Amino acid sequence: MAEPSLIGVDWGTSRLRLALVDGDGAVLAEHEADAGILTVPDGGFAAVLREAVRALGAPAGLPIVLSGMITSRQGWHELPYQACPAGADALARALHRVDEPDLGQLHFITGLAWTSPDGIPDVMRGEETQIMGQDDLVAGEAVVLPGTHSKWVAVEDGRIVRFRTFMTGELFAVLAAQSILGRLMTEGPEDPAAFARGVRLGLAGTGLLGQLFSARTLPLMGLLPETAVRDYLSGLLIGTEIAEVTAFERPTAVVVIGSDALARRYATALDQAGIRHRPGHRDAAYRGQWRVANAAGIIG
Amino acid sequence: MAEPSLIGVDWGTSRLRLALVDGDGAVLAEHEADAGILTVPDGGFAAVLREAVRALGAPAGLPIVLSGMITSRQGWHELPYQACPAGADALARALHRVDEPDLGQLHFITGLAWTSPDGIPDVMRGEETQIMGQDDLVAGEAVVLPGTHSKWVAVEDGRIVRFRTFMTGELFAVLAAQSILGRLMTEGPEDPAAFARGVRLGLAGTGLLGQLFSARTLPLMGLLPETAVRDYLSGLLIGTEIAEVTAFERPTAVVVIGSDALARRYATALDQAGIRHRPGHRDAAYRGQWRVANAAGIIG
Repeated sequence: MAEPSLIGVDWGTSRLRLALVDGDGAVLAEHEADAGILTVPDGGFAAVLREAVRALGAPAGLPIVLSGMITSRQGWHELPYQACPAGADALARALHRVDEPDLGQLHFITGLAWTSPDGIPDVMRGEETQIMGQDDLVAGEAVVLPGTHSKWVAVEDGRIVRFRTFMTGELFAVLAAQSILGRLMTEGPEDPAAFARGVRLGLAGTGLLGQLFSARTLPLMGLLPETAVRDYLSGLLIGTEIAEVTAFERPTAVVVIGSDALARRYATALDQAGIRHRPGHRDAAYRGQWRVANAAGIIG
Repeated sequence: MAEPSLIGVDWGTSRLRLALVDGDGAVLAEHEADAGILTVPDGGFAAVLREAVRALGAPAGLPIVLSGMITSRQGWHELPYQACPAGADALARALHRVDEPDLGQLHFITGLAWTSPDGIPDVMRGEETQIMGQDDLVAGEAVVLPGTHSKWVAVEDGRIVRFRTFMTGELFAVLAAQSILGRLMTEGPEDPAAFARGVRLGLAGTGLLGQLFSARTLPLMGLLPETAVRDYLSGLLIGTEIAEVTAFERPTAVVVIGSDALARRYATALDQAGIRHRPGHRDAAYRGQWRVANAAGIIG
């Protein structure tokens, strides 16, 4: 019963993750490498993938299903975005198939685009597959995928209907690395109270541009230890993100996809906002690849 | 009648500016140097100022009035912030006097602090003096000082009653230098339409974290030339700043202090927001120093 049915490949900007997936969508084995698409030289994707499949210990002849930034302009095969609403069937219809020597048949899942009512386009590559793997959503639940570019996604009847990207993680990184706020940051133990204080201010929703400076003035006035500036700024940004989202969306609950420290921060901030939440599937990407492969008739 | 009455010194983080000011507060001569406080070694301030006063061609024996970051922790004499409300009289009472060989009597104007109703402190050093120099404000006018840390200031009866700092300029700089948005920016001619489009989105006030990504998706979708990303992002940030301010303040008009390209951008954005505005005094800092010196009885 634990027979492998496919190899799922989640190939992003900075990481390559792949797994052997059984006929029920469960992970039998996994392998990770620092072989994000930006590290792979032109023409080198097949060689990197062959090596990773070997490291995974996968038997020959399995279909390989790929998702993530690997279908972007900087990836292996650039694929056009599909329009929302889109579910597993639409993603299956849009699969791009390539026969690759020594690897067999590759199936690339493309990303999605959505344009807001005010005419602003948004895009995702990889998250659509993770959301397909989150196949236990109930009506009214939203999905958040925290990260460099955090995504909030509305799903109806198994189809992604709209989504928004928040540059929260990247903004934190550039402010910490380059701004006057970063120059104030002193290493220290985690400070949950400072994080909560930042979240509270962000949730107030009075606007990020006018609140950022507080990460400088509070320590300047002796009202926040310098060792707490990092956690305070993190909370301020995540709280602001939640305030911006909930000005438009009123989810009954939120599924947080991700199992790292950042996902735990979102869970804490959602608690503060009084919004119910639960963790998503750890292996949502592989499970989504398995669902799309099923919908496409590749397996099963 | 054009007798010099004092030397005004506006000494900031990156620039040193000084002027010979006559008995009516008008500038007779000016000198600038790249000798911001962060470039001056410990104990080197007097030597730098002596050299600058020589370059200005000032006669001996004039009082010297200084304002700006020169009174910060990284400056020459760190002075405590004064509380709002504060006008020229309060700043005159808080003057810090030092006798310096070969320079004579120095008078340091300190900065102001204000704490918002939600408990967030804000600070300024230098802008308070520029605002004192803007002595033609009428009731209901607000003052904006665009820059790395843009300040919006409410003045009543010649006294600064509250203010807020927006990290707009610094955020633009770090995003342009470090983020994925900066990597998309291609040099090109100024693009007023792209700037206006960014302002429009910012003024909509739906939140910066969720709008920043549009500076990536619009060019990605071919809806904005890459050469226009810089102006678009600039507009988005300035529009957001105005939206955040006007959610709290309803000035009848805004005085924009500054005469550079950035001040012109603020004027354009204020036009789009339908907010009346006028340019401030070019020499507001020197005129403010002259007013504080008058209030202190140093001259006149």
